[in-house]
Amino acid sequence: MKKYLMELIGTFFLVFTIGMSVLAGGDGVIPPLAIGSVLMVMIYAGGHISGGHYNPAVTLGVWLRGRCATKDVIPYMLFQAMGAVLAGAVVRYVMPINHPQIRHLAVMPELLAEFLFTFALVFVVLNSATSDDNNGNSFFGLAIGFTVVAGAFAVGGVASAAFNPAVAVGISFMGMVAWTKIWVYLLANFAGGAFAALAFHALAPETRGAAAKAGKLQTNP
Amino acid sequence: MKKYLMELIGTFFLVFTIGMSVLAGGDGVIPPLAIGSVLMVMIYAGGHISGGHYNPAVTLGVWLRGRCATKDVIPYMLFQAMGAVLAGAVVRYVMPINHPQIRHLAVMPELLAEFLFTFALVFVVLNSATSDDNNGNSFFGLAIGFTVVAGAFAVGGVASAAFNPAVAVGISFMGMVAWTKIWVYLLANFAGGAFAALAFHALAPETRGAAAKAGKLQTNP
Amino acid sequence: MKKYLMELIGTFFLVFTIGMSVLAGGDGVIPPLAIGSVLMVMIYAGGHISGGHYNPAVTLGVWLRGRCATKDVIPYMLFQAMGAVLAGAVVRYVMPINHPQIRHLAVMPELLAEFLFTFALVFVVLNSATSDDNNGNSFFGLAIGFTVVAGAFAVGGVASAAFNPAVAVGISFMGMVAWTKIWVYLLANFAGGAFAALAFHALAPETRGAAAKAGKLQTNP
Amino acid sequence: MKKYLMELIGTFFLVFTIGMSVLAGGDGVIPPLAIGSVLMVMIYAGGHISGGHYNPAVTLGVWLRGRCATKDVIPYMLFQAMGAVLAGAVVRYVMPINHPQIRHLAVMPELLAEFLFTFALVFVVLNSATSDDNNGNSFFGLAIGFTVVAGAFAVGGVASAAFNPAVAVGISFMGMVAWTKIWVYLLANFAGGAFAALAFHALAPETRGAAAKAGKLQTNP
Repeated sequence: MKKYLMELIGTFFLVFTIGMSVLAGGDGVIPPLAIGSVLMVMIYAGGHISGGHYNPAVTLGVWLRGRCATKDVIPYMLFQAMGAVLAGAVVRYVMPINHPQIRHLAVMPELLAEFLFTFALVFVVLNSATSDDNNGNSFFGLAIGFTVVAGAFAVGGVASAAFNPAVAVGISFMGMVAWTKIWVYLLANFAGGAFAALAFHALAPETRGAAAKAGKLQTNP
Repeated sequence: MKKYLMELIGTFFLVFTIGMSVLAGGDGVIPPLAIGSVLMVMIYAGGHISGGHYNPAVTLGVWLRGRCATKDVIPYMLFQAMGAVLAGAVVRYVMPINHPQIRHLAVMPELLAEFLFTFALVFVVLNSATSDDNNGNSFFGLAIGFTVVAGAFAVGGVASAAFNPAVAVGISFMGMVAWTKIWVYLLANFAGGAFAALAFHALAPETRGAAAKAGKLQTNP
Repeated sequence: MKKYLMELIGTFFLVFTIGMSVLAGGDGVIPPLAIGSVLMVMIYAGGHISGGHYNPAVTLGVWLRGRCATKDVIPYMLFQAMGAVLAGAVVRYVMPINHPQIRHLAVMPELLAEFLFTFALVFVVLNSATSDDNNGNSFFGLAIGFTVVAGAFAVGGVASAAFNPAVAVGISFMGMVAWTKIWVYLLANFAGGAFAALAFHALAPETRGAAAKAGKLQTNP
Repeated sequence: MKKYLMELIGTFFLVFTIGMSVLAGGDGVIPPLAIGSVLMVMIYAGGHISGGHYNPAVTLGVWLRGRCATKDVIPYMLFQAMGAVLAGAVVRYVMPINHPQIRHLAVMPELLAEFLFTFALVFVVLNSATSDDNNGNSFFGLAIGFTVVAGAFAVGGVASAAFNPAVAVGISFMGMVAWTKIWVYLLANFAGGAFAALAFHALAPETRGAAAKAGKLQTNP
């Protein structure tokens, strides 16, 4: 239960920051920095409690990689979705906007962009936070948070840059995207997470076992 | 006394940077980056001396969590407030402005926004800088500083984004907010810090004791 | 083969982010932050697999420094180039632009700027990621990624700021620079990488051997 | 000699980035990020070789703190100044500008602002990179570089934000400030460095000796 509450808190602050920084309508450089930063700090705060997923696609990838108990998968996703909806409700109270502008984005480019950067995000999570080669590092939160910074800057023009089904629920609930488009994010984000787990297993370095045994951090080539 | 002076120096540079970067009136992306950065670097510089609070709400939270001696609580808060006032005086000398624009913000949204991100800030402090699971990490300053970056970007449109009663004193002293509003920050920020300590204790992972005994950093799920 | 695929994936996301963030044509502060961030996170993700080069000039420098097997040099460079071309193809599909604006830059300043910052980039790689003095650090990805942030901000006005022959291939393929200029990048970037390896060997601290034997990280003067 | 060359290289890239990013005349958010980033990456690259000063005020402070040999002080400062002049010459070749705009700044506010943030910079250096309490950390470059980011954002409106006598020489050489003002930087920056060393010694935590003996990193309060 403690883990589930941590996932709710982390996803709450992620979606709250998304809603507030996007709806404020300011400088386009701000939302990606704000969103990547809050994801980074919530991962540093909650990583030792729940793993700091805050994203059903991450939970799927971590489960496929063998670092999330099967019994936790559905509760993690539900509490992430609850955090997202709760955040959306607070945003709607704090900053009421009746008719947010909905952008009309082409489906195929958005699908591809969401897939590619969710793959990148989960691939970074698996390597920086679950690889035996990188035990005890201090960079995992920085790496994961700034994947979202890079991704939001890169594909923000052709996609909503959710990279996260719980975020998709949150931004749909806040009226920032149409509910009829939710399948785009569910499909692209879960597929990205699953492919990242496949790639993680396929690319595991041959020396991993030996390195783990020797208790040695391998950051050098 | 050394610890108290460190708190004064750190809070001085925090409030000095707030005053100078906000009153310069430039690009809206600048103050949050400047403020989060100076908090981060002062925490890295002074963390080993005083714990690097620079914030009465953090001192309250760390005291409730059991990592600040009771006899230090009031002196810490007093020296933080002195640092803030001193910084305000220097800002007023260096960049004299007679009538800074005061924004009229709705009370309830500001109260809620200040509460939420002070909670996040102190929760990040307690987990990244006082949890046995994260001993010896290098990310604590980055995590704490960038919580303020994210928070200032997220709620800067509906709140002053103080997240810190000493900052509230400083910005009131500089005429950036009305003194009659000081209760908003005192209430929201101390409440956020106290709730963060409650949440920290409630969410402490069951494995903490064992992990601490084994001297192992648990960053992985 | 696993290492080669990792180099392809990392270079793919680097060039994909370059193409998307530059062609979106937004705020000039965005592309350098996006590009430096994606390089950083791909290095943190893939460093333990392939070394995280994603750049033939880095591969040249690391090989001259003695940390890349001779048999890997050509395959690394080929897979990096393939990743770049693949990324260019995806960018052209996702964000089709018929006639991107090509800037006319003076040759000698661009040659010099490309040489200088490729030297800086590979010099930072060799010292932060392959020096025995810095074993086990968590900063290597941050240092390498933000060299590109600084370089793109510094010389973006007089150069394409590739610092990377694979990036040069990618931006030529996307029509962002003329193919007839490819020699500028090949010459300046490979020369920068080679000189960085020379400088690394020339400046190796005398205490390195002793420090490595003692297993001690030397970050202090 | 190796140490001296490293100081020349690091100061070269610092001043080169300052000249190029400021003279490009773009978005005001760019130069501080570029300059802080290049300082950070050069410290990570050269810290294990020369200590990564790149600043005569830092050399003064580190010498007063007892971590720089007396025989190195003058050579360090000379090679830093040479790096700065060399960078200025390259900037003038790459981006020739006959009459850069010189801002007229009030002397006393600039003196005070330069003193305060040079104090902060050297204080951060001494605590993050030379304190026994923080041995083996990965944050020293981030902390030092982002002190300059924060300082340039904070006082850039009332000062040149050099915080560094070698930078003062470089920006005077490039015609960005008048040579007649060089005393402002020499006075304020060296005084800031000297006071930082005094503050470092005065605030050294009582537990330092014990902590150093136990070989334990003290990041928690």
